[in-house]
Amino acid sequence: MQSDLSCFFHPESIAIVGVSRNTTKAGYGILKNVLWTFSNTERIYPINPKATEILGLKVFHSLKDIEENIDLVICFVTPKVIPALLHECNEKGVKGVIIESAGFAEIGEEGKRVQNEISRLGKEFNIRIWGGNCMGTITDELITTFEPITADMRQKGVVSIVGQSGYFSGAVILQMFTERYLGVRTAASIGNRIDVDECDLLEHFMSDYETRVAAFYLEGLKQPRKFLRLAKDFTKTKPLICLLGGQSEVGRKAALSHTSSTAHGSPQLLSNVLKQSKIIQATEFGEFFNIMEAFAKLPLPAGNRLAIVTITGAGGVIGADIAANFNIKIPQLSDVTTKKLQEFFPKWMSPKNPLDSWPAFEIHGLAKALHQIIPTLFESNEIDMILLMIAAMQVAITFDPALINTMKKFNKPIITYIVGDNRIKKEWTTQIRLEGGVVYDDINTAIKVLDHMVRFASSKE
Amino acid sequence: MQSDLSCFFHPESIAIVGVSRNTTKAGYGILKNVLWTFSNTERIYPINPKATEILGLKVFHSLKDIEENIDLVICFVTPKVIPALLHECNEKGVKGVIIESAGFAEIGEEGKRVQNEISRLGKEFNIRIWGGNCMGTITDELITTFEPITADMRQKGVVSIVGQSGYFSGAVILQMFTERYLGVRTAASIGNRIDVDECDLLEHFMSDYETRVAAFYLEGLKQPRKFLRLAKDFTKTKPLICLLGGQSEVGRKAALSHTSSTAHGSPQLLSNVLKQSKIIQATEFGEFFNIMEAFAKLPLPAGNRLAIVTITGAGGVIGADIAANFNIKIPQLSDVTTKKLQEFFPKWMSPKNPLDSWPAFEIHGLAKALHQIIPTLFESNEIDMILLMIAAMQVAITFDPALINTMKKFNKPIITYIVGDNRIKKEWTTQIRLEGGVVYDDINTAIKVLDHMVRFASSKE
Repeated sequence: MQSDLSCFFHPESIAIVGVSRNTTKAGYGILKNVLWTFSNTERIYPINPKATEILGLKVFHSLKDIEENIDLVICFVTPKVIPALLHECNEKGVKGVIIESAGFAEIGEEGKRVQNEISRLGKEFNIRIWGGNCMGTITDELITTFEPITADMRQKGVVSIVGQSGYFSGAVILQMFTERYLGVRTAASIGNRIDVDECDLLEHFMSDYETRVAAFYLEGLKQPRKFLRLAKDFTKTKPLICLLGGQSEVGRKAALSHTSSTAHGSPQLLSNVLKQSKIIQATEFGEFFNIMEAFAKLPLPAGNRLAIVTITGAGGVIGADIAANFNIKIPQLSDVTTKKLQEFFPKWMSPKNPLDSWPAFEIHGLAKALHQIIPTLFESNEIDMILLMIAAMQVAITFDPALINTMKKFNKPIITYIVGDNRIKKEWTTQIRLEGGVVYDDINTAIKVLDHMVRFASSKE
Repeated sequence: MQSDLSCFFHPESIAIVGVSRNTTKAGYGILKNVLWTFSNTERIYPINPKATEILGLKVFHSLKDIEENIDLVICFVTPKVIPALLHECNEKGVKGVIIESAGFAEIGEEGKRVQNEISRLGKEFNIRIWGGNCMGTITDELITTFEPITADMRQKGVVSIVGQSGYFSGAVILQMFTERYLGVRTAASIGNRIDVDECDLLEHFMSDYETRVAAFYLEGLKQPRKFLRLAKDFTKTKPLICLLGGQSEVGRKAALSHTSSTAHGSPQLLSNVLKQSKIIQATEFGEFFNIMEAFAKLPLPAGNRLAIVTITGAGGVIGADIAANFNIKIPQLSDVTTKKLQEFFPKWMSPKNPLDSWPAFEIHGLAKALHQIIPTLFESNEIDMILLMIAAMQVAITFDPALINTMKKFNKPIITYIVGDNRIKKEWTTQIRLEGGVVYDDINTAIKVLDHMVRFASSKE
C-alpha cells in the first residue's frame, strides 16, 4: 500500500487551530503563510475562541462552527488539548492533522503520555498525524510553517527535503533559498513522527516526478529496514542524501530530549549499513547543503576525470593533493588537446592539468580565455568535470556572467571556487548561483562532492 | 647567526625597477603601494628608461642615475635583464632585492639557468634576494606587492603569513582582510626562494614580539631539518600553521611547474614528521584561514570541556556527534549549574549540555538569555569553551552586538555558527567578525579548530 499523503500536500480545505493576532506568534505565521499560498482562499478557516477576525478572515470559535468539510487541520496549541481536538476532527471527517507545537515525548513522561494518546486516536479515527514539534510543509501550492516565508524566499526546485527537527528544517530551508538560490519541490519537517514518518515521505517522493533529489535529516530511523528497502529502490534513479544525527552517545542522548528519537538500533551499525547502500551520508549541515546543491544543479559526470583550471598555481597543487584522497583522476592531457590549448597560452608555457591559466588570462582576459579553455577541455573527450578556481582581485580580472552559459553548455559538471577580495567574491558568487551554478568556499568540499557524484553516476549504470 | 631581513622590512630607501604608467600593470601597482605606505617618500626612486614622471615622482633611467644610497630594490622586469641589474645593485651598495616577476626555474631550463645566475650573483655581492615569482611583502610600514591594496583593506594584526605562491598569497591576504577582518603583522610571498626562504622568515617571526601566530603555505621545504628545528622552538610559545602543497604525485608535479619546488624529500615522510611536531597542518585554503583566524582572535582554552549552546536541538545532536571524533568532551553539567540555568528556562525543561536554548530565547529574547547563559556556564568552572549555534530567522530573534562583549569578557573561546536567512546571517557574521569574534559556516570546522586549540594549549604546559 502506498502512503497517501495527499491530505497534507493537496488539501481542498484547511482549518488552523490556535491562530493569533500577535504577529510574532506561530499561530499568526501559519495563517499568513497559508493565506498567500493556498489558492482556495475561501476554504481557509482560522480558529480561535477569543477572536472574530484575523488578516481579513472570519475567525471560528471551534471546528464545530464550520459548516463545510475540512481536509486538513494545522494546529499550534498546547499538547493537552489535542486529544479533544482529534475527537472534533473525527466528527468533521478531517483526513490529516499537522501538529507544530512542541511538548511531547521530547519533554518526558507527561508529554509521552499525551503523544501516545494522540497516536492511538489517530489510528482509531483514521486520521493521519503529522508532527508534533515540527514546522509543517512547504510546496509549490501550500506553505504551512509558522516562520513567515515571503515571496522572494520561495523558489521552485527539484529537491525534496525532510527534517525531523522543527527549527532546523526552517533555518536550513531559509538558507537554501537565500544563500544558494536553491528552491525546493517539497520541504517537510516531520518532528516527533507521531504517525507520518520518513518512509511515508520517501515513498511519496519516489512517485513524484518533480522530485529529482531527496535529502533527509533524521535523528533516528523509525523503521530502519523499511527505509533501507525503499532507499534501495529510490537510489536506482535518484540520489538520496542523509544526515543522521545521534550517532555518538552524547548525540543520541541529545536527540532523545530533542525529538524523542530512541535511536537507530545500534547507530554505528546503522551507519555501516548505510555505507553499503547507495545513500549519500553527510556528517553535518554545511556538507548537507553542499551535496544537495550540486546534485540539484549540476549534470552527473560521465566518469572520474577532473581538470583543474586555476588562476593560481597553488590551487592546482592543493586541488591535486586533495583529489588523491578520492577516486578522482587528474589525467594528463593528450598531445592534441595540449596543442589546442597552447593557442591561448604564451609560448614559454606548456599547458598541463592542473592548468595554471593565469598566463592565458593575462593575454585574453578571464572571460575570453575561459570561453576557449572550457570547450577545448570538454570537447576533447578526456575530461568529465572541471574545478574552476578564480581569484577575486582588482588587478586581475572582471567576471563575465556569460561565462555561466559556457559552463552550462556542456552536459558536464563545473564547480567554482573563489578566493580573494570578499566584496568581489560575494558578487561573483551570487551571479553564478543565481544562474544555477555551484560555488563552494573550500576546495575539499568541491572535490568531495564531485566524488559523491562520480560514485552515484557509476552506480546507476 | 640570525637572518637579517631588515633591508626588506625596514629599508631607508627604495628603488622600483620596471615602473609603469599603465594602471593595470604590476609596475604601477608596486609604486602605488610603496608610495602610500612608505613614510620616507623622498627616498622612493622609480626607474624606467622611457619615462620622466609617474604618480608625481621623478623617474630615473637607471640605478646609476640616483645619487643617494639604495637599501632595497623591488623589480618587475623580464628575468634575463636581472643579472645586469644585480651588477648595478652591487655598485650602489644595495642590501636586498625583491624580484616579483616570473619566468624562472618554474618554466624550465632557460629560466633555471638565469635563476642560478641570480643566486650566484646575490651570494657574490652579499645581496639578499627575495622571490622571484612572488608578490613581495605587506607590513605596517611598507607594502611592496603589485596588487593595489587600499587603506580599507589594510588591517594591523597579529598573524604573520608566508606564501610561496605569488598569486595565492595576494588572494589569501585580501580574503583575510575583507572577509574575516583579520589583519596581518607581516604577509610575505616568497615565491621561488632564490635566497630568502621559510627558515629565514620563521626565525624573523620568532624574535618579533608582535607576531603571535605564524602561517606558512609552502610547496616544499628548502631546508626541512632546519625548519623543523626552528619550528620546535617556535611552537613552544606561538602556534605555527602549515599548509603543505605537493603531497600527492600530481600535486608534486604541479608544484614543480608552479614554484619549481623539487619537493620535500618524501612528502609523505615529511607530513608524518610534521604530525609528530606541534605544527598544525591544514589541508587546504579554507581550513588554513579558519585555523589562523581562531588562533589570532580567540584566547586558548584551558581544557577540552565544550558546551554547545544551540537554538536548534539538531545543532546539539550533530555537534555532539562531531565532537565524538575529536578529543573534545561535552560534559554533563553539575546540579548547581543546572539549577542556575533552570532560572532562565521554562519549568518543563531541564537544561543539559548540549543546551537547546530555544525555550529560553522564547521567554527572554536571544540577547538577554545569552547574557545569562554564557556567564553561568563559564563561571561554573565546568566549561572551557562554547560553540554557539544561532539561527538567522525573522520570527526568531534579533542579534544584539553587545553580546560580543559578553562573549569576550571571559578569557575562554566562543565560536559561533549561524544557519538561516542569508541576508540576516551575513549581517550578523560581519558584526561578530568586526568585533573580533569568530564565525564559521559549518560545525565540523568549528569543532576541528577548537580541537587544534585544545591540543596546542595542552602542549604548551
